[in-house]
Amino acid sequence: MKTERNIAVAITGFGSIGRRIAQMLLARREAYRERYGADVRITGVCGSAAGLIDLAGLEPARLDDRERVAQGLTGETFLRQMDADVLIEAGPSDYRTGGASLLYLRGALERGMQAIAVSKGALVVDLRGLLRLADAHGGSLRLSAAAASGLPTVDFLRHSLAGCRVLSFEAVLTGTANLVLEEMMNGLGFGDAVALAQERGIAEPDPSFDVEGWDTAAKLVIIANAALGAGLRLDALPREGIRHVGADDVARWRSEGQSPRLVGFVERDDGGFRAGVELRTYGQDHPFAHLRGSMKGLTAVTDEMGPLTVIGGASDPRATAAAALKDFEHILAAR
Amino acid sequence: MKTERNIAVAITGFGSIGRRIAQMLLARREAYRERYGADVRITGVCGSAAGLIDLAGLEPARLDDRERVAQGLTGETFLRQMDADVLIEAGPSDYRTGGASLLYLRGALERGMQAIAVSKGALVVDLRGLLRLADAHGGSLRLSAAAASGLPTVDFLRHSLAGCRVLSFEAVLTGTANLVLEEMMNGLGFGDAVALAQERGIAEPDPSFDVEGWDTAAKLVIIANAALGAGLRLDALPREGIRHVGADDVARWRSEGQSPRLVGFVERDDGGFRAGVELRTYGQDHPFAHLRGSMKGLTAVTDEMGPLTVIGGASDPRATAAAALKDFEHILAAR
Repeated sequence: MKTERNIAVAITGFGSIGRRIAQMLLARREAYRERYGADVRITGVCGSAAGLIDLAGLEPARLDDRERVAQGLTGETFLRQMDADVLIEAGPSDYRTGGASLLYLRGALERGMQAIAVSKGALVVDLRGLLRLADAHGGSLRLSAAAASGLPTVDFLRHSLAGCRVLSFEAVLTGTANLVLEEMMNGLGFGDAVALAQERGIAEPDPSFDVEGWDTAAKLVIIANAALGAGLRLDALPREGIRHVGADDVARWRSEGQSPRLVGFVERDDGGFRAGVELRTYGQDHPFAHLRGSMKGLTAVTDEMGPLTVIGGASDPRATAAAALKDFEHILAAR
Repeated sequence: MKTERNIAVAITGFGSIGRRIAQMLLARREAYRERYGADVRITGVCGSAAGLIDLAGLEPARLDDRERVAQGLTGETFLRQMDADVLIEAGPSDYRTGGASLLYLRGALERGMQAIAVSKGALVVDLRGLLRLADAHGGSLRLSAAAASGLPTVDFLRHSLAGCRVLSFEAVLTGTANLVLEEMMNGLGFGDAVALAQERGIAEPDPSFDVEGWDTAAKLVIIANAALGAGLRLDALPREGIRHVGADDVARWRSEGQSPRLVGFVERDDGGFRAGVELRTYGQDHPFAHLRGSMKGLTAVTDEMGPLTVIGGASDPRATAAAALKDFEHILAAR
């Protein structure tokens, strides 16, 4: 049993995911104490307009205490006043500038903190710079929740496949696209399939980001850059969506026993990397052919261990919160 | 870049796997230097009757230098004279007593070393005692190569699924059994299917260990005990083999579209664990139905992320060596 250590956690971006992370983390305090000898507290949370800091630790009931929330306690002001070991960033994604997420992650890493990214925008914009900051100040940046959350990707490639050289990988990363393609193979038109995914709460009201391949592209950029140092850029990535899929495609795939999947891929190529988002089809002997509903999957080809595939990955807020807390456990285990 | 550290490695059990590990490790010295700032040397190797120690580091050509091998430099004598940070144990498995493997692992852990187990016997006999020794002396015990080698199992369950509670898992762990069942589904009788697996160099001359479920049982005990602390005992594990499979079974499974697999399973049950080795059948929508040849697979059911499956796992010495060196990279990354 290690000596008990105090671990203070701040959460920025306090929407539905941030709240769920906070609740799950507080519910696990006893487990952290037993397993890691760590006394874990949430010492600050903030949203886009207001925040709350309490160095003694915020209990579940007080996280939403409107009386105590301070207007303006956000952004740089929050960063200056908070005192935490770990920052969990769960704000909205801005894929153009990185937005407030990037400010929080940079601020945390400049202070030598351990950072956990949940949203993707800042990572797509400047993962390399953030990793450099982490190195320079002795902190770390973890990003399981931003890299397909419920599906192990970066830790699978880096930890489970350490000791191998990963030559390439391809991955089904967008639950919505998978579900829409599945329903189209069942006979629905594109519009009806999207409507069904929206009814089930899986597709967004505006599904463009998912069905045009942007979601897959963003996750691919994060995973390939974090796990392989591929240096991909979102705006330079060849990208295909699934809007153009028609009844004739569906008929042909069916007759050939093929299942269509929207995949992100990256391959080592002549000293560099070739990557993109493509609609590919898979025969029934390939694990991707059996990804039902919003399931995800990743197949890596390695030099020493051949091909390895991981599949699963619930697409819900609970899985995303659990992925962020996986990163948190890795931090506790490493200290 | 970290300051360069010297890392001395000893290898006990210097048969074909031990040699391959040594060659692969020496071929990666430059990579270890770049990635971890570590100057890695092999300072000693020993087999059952003789050994070789050179604190300056054994180069590839000298690993088999018969002139320099000292008879009797093995066992306790080797342990007393060697001076290493990491011990890799790759001797033969003794499932009854743990044999020399257990002596080497205990000796290394008592000296505070980091230990990597490749063979399974000692782990089946006394994993709990070895982990306790590692804890008491500040070392560690890693065992990827003994836990299905090319298929990530313990690190998948512990690292990739940290932040989840693993409720149960089932796993196809024995390449030979999988290949024999596959050939039987293709029309061969049991004897012919075993002969074919032997021709391909996958089944042992005496296939009993694999086809009677012992290999699956041993791996299950190691994985479940290391990843879940299940406390399983090999001699108390309900165990089924595949010898009894007949043409009528094959005909029935074919007509039902089911694929037979020999699996090890463990489930949390009333505060404890229920476990065993069973022949189970899977429909074509289950990833296990598509495990070809000697491929392996593991499906874990978690509370937060639902079911997750990993499949792959080349069954060859190269994959086993790579799995041992995965453990080695985890040690380098942690120091």
